[in-house]
Amino acid sequence: MADQFVQNPVGIEPPTLPALRWDEPPEGPVLVLLDQTRLPAEEVELVCTDVPALVRAIQTLAVRGAPLLGIAGAYGVALAAERGYDVDEAVALLEGARPTAVNLGYGVRRAAAAYRAAVGKDGDLEQASQAALAAAKALHREDADASARMAEQGLMLLDELLPGGGHRILTHCNTGALVSGGEGTAFAVALTAHRAGRLRRLWVDETRPLLQGARLTAYEAARSGMPYTLLTDNAAGSLFAAGEVDAVLIGADRIAADGSVANKVGSYPLAVLARYHRVPFIVVAPTTTMDLSTPNGASIEVEQRPGQEVTEVSAPQTAAGGVSGGLQVAPLGTQAYNPAFDVTPPDLVTAIVTEQGALSPVTGGGIAELCARSRQVTIS
Amino acid sequence: MADQFVQNPVGIEPPTLPALRWDEPPEGPVLVLLDQTRLPAEEVELVCTDVPALVRAIQTLAVRGAPLLGIAGAYGVALAAERGYDVDEAVALLEGARPTAVNLGYGVRRAAAAYRAAVGKDGDLEQASQAALAAAKALHREDADASARMAEQGLMLLDELLPGGGHRILTHCNTGALVSGGEGTAFAVALTAHRAGRLRRLWVDETRPLLQGARLTAYEAARSGMPYTLLTDNAAGSLFAAGEVDAVLIGADRIAADGSVANKVGSYPLAVLARYHRVPFIVVAPTTTMDLSTPNGASIEVEQRPGQEVTEVSAPQTAAGGVSGGLQVAPLGTQAYNPAFDVTPPDLVTAIVTEQGALSPVTGGGIAELCARSRQVTIS
Repeated sequence: MADQFVQNPVGIEPPTLPALRWDEPPEGPVLVLLDQTRLPAEEVELVCTDVPALVRAIQTLAVRGAPLLGIAGAYGVALAAERGYDVDEAVALLEGARPTAVNLGYGVRRAAAAYRAAVGKDGDLEQASQAALAAAKALHREDADASARMAEQGLMLLDELLPGGGHRILTHCNTGALVSGGEGTAFAVALTAHRAGRLRRLWVDETRPLLQGARLTAYEAARSGMPYTLLTDNAAGSLFAAGEVDAVLIGADRIAADGSVANKVGSYPLAVLARYHRVPFIVVAPTTTMDLSTPNGASIEVEQRPGQEVTEVSAPQTAAGGVSGGLQVAPLGTQAYNPAFDVTPPDLVTAIVTEQGALSPVTGGGIAELCARSRQVTIS
Repeated sequence: MADQFVQNPVGIEPPTLPALRWDEPPEGPVLVLLDQTRLPAEEVELVCTDVPALVRAIQTLAVRGAPLLGIAGAYGVALAAERGYDVDEAVALLEGARPTAVNLGYGVRRAAAAYRAAVGKDGDLEQASQAALAAAKALHREDADASARMAEQGLMLLDELLPGGGHRILTHCNTGALVSGGEGTAFAVALTAHRAGRLRRLWVDETRPLLQGARLTAYEAARSGMPYTLLTDNAAGSLFAAGEVDAVLIGADRIAADGSVANKVGSYPLAVLARYHRVPFIVVAPTTTMDLSTPNGASIEVEQRPGQEVTEVSAPQTAAGGVSGGLQVAPLGTQAYNPAFDVTPPDLVTAIVTEQGALSPVTGGGIAELCARSRQVTIS
């Protein structure tokens, strides 16, 4: 069950609601999500009291973004445990909610492992649910830390690749505080550059079909006072040709063992354009996005989403009941090809920036080493 | 002044209205346009009784597409002449209506030259306006013929480049009967391949921001019974990577003397993707699109359109008064970069198919020769 609270419209009340928060009102624990389908028109919180509500929120993209999905998944397990629902069932539901982002499964498994270890130890379910919650909170905190470290590492890399500052960065989809326990991945690098006075322009791809760039990245950039300009995805070519792009910065939903990067559809064409124009193409993602059990790009499962997302257009939903959702554009009966992600091979990626440092060139050996380093840190 | 007649909705009455027709009702001559902003939802005709109405129709893209703009411009001159308006003023208004498509100016100047020649001969304005109309009708007919010849030449080229048939063609924007006196440019090639049983799939780029692919190409493909699939512009990369595209076919708004091709924004990224994947990138355009007075790509003026087209989304307008036009997507105050066209350099173009034959490789010498051949034919 998901309740909805409408907050003040954007622009009247400056403080931003967090993308996700755990709350414990007298009626019992809940996971509260900022409904991203309604941004930037309205800031509305979705209150999830059980896992099916959370799964719906994940599938409708009310909550989205690889790192945040991991955190949401971990809290989901804690929610099921705290409320006395079947934890195994919750794990299965959450793991299957979306196939491409590896972090979701990671977060779910981490909280579930903590829960099961505690159950195995003394069988105390109360203790076990506390362990799941602690695991979710730890992941949340770690992601915020990772975000800060990626931002720092990313800016160092930018300054190294592009001495002189005044960076003009092109980004795709949304990778800011809305996808993270902290300030995000690629967006956090641009934001850090902005704060350091070294961002000349953030070029924001609108990111069809769901317009996460136009709706969410523009919203985050505007709130942060960054110099940004929105464009249709296909206008990026003109910017490259005019020499207006110094670097491309994107996030990732899954990085295979060979360094292939699955990210929002439209990332791969940018990688090809960047290569053609000799512009650095940089992926910013925590090591939790790396999946050593996926050997290469071809083995990444790419989520195919409903054709309606292409044959119809929609503006952000409104409290009035989503009147603006789904205006038919293409003729009725039109079939659409609508992959949510595409895969960029490692040789088109200049560098992958993680919380453990930047990897360039991108190789399978380097990926394995970063993952090993990350595990050491987590264990220590 | 433009009157509007709502016809039957799509799907109920099969015969398609022509994109443009000259009519002479008792109240005086008119130019009747199929309002392309309302497709595919409704087939509505706009009746232009003067040039300012036609200019508005051109600027709002009710009538669009390089070859058709040329024909509309020529009829516009005839309309002014027949109705006794100032022809010089009409010429100036029409020539300035949109900057990038060269055909518009060509059509306007051709009808104006016929008018002025007739005025110069015996000063009979009645005769002169008949001469302008005859020039417009000749251009209309020639464009239909050119379209048929391009379709034939284009299919020959496809069969040569891709022996075995079963072509999977990716196209961008709209280049069918809605942009032409005949069946169009790139689309006409695909349609001819379809009729010959050699089209396996037409991949239709939706073509942001105005969705000419989703609205118009899908509409034309559906009406012709072609196997087509719609995609967001940025999903084309995944199709190339999967080996699902055998050739890219697009039209052109202006071809410079060096063979640089200005076409709908999004064409250039496709050219770069096609090169990267060694897929033929073919431009289909009549020789009237070639502009020897524009030396190269850098000297092509690219129309910048309002940012609103990107910060808002809209579905086709409806007779009810365009309720669906302009739903805000990006935060208020968001700046957008919105070039209507981009420029592809000749070295990325595999071939240019014209009514005078196909040119490959694309060179300045070849362009000059095709233009000379075309002038000979027109003179003979």
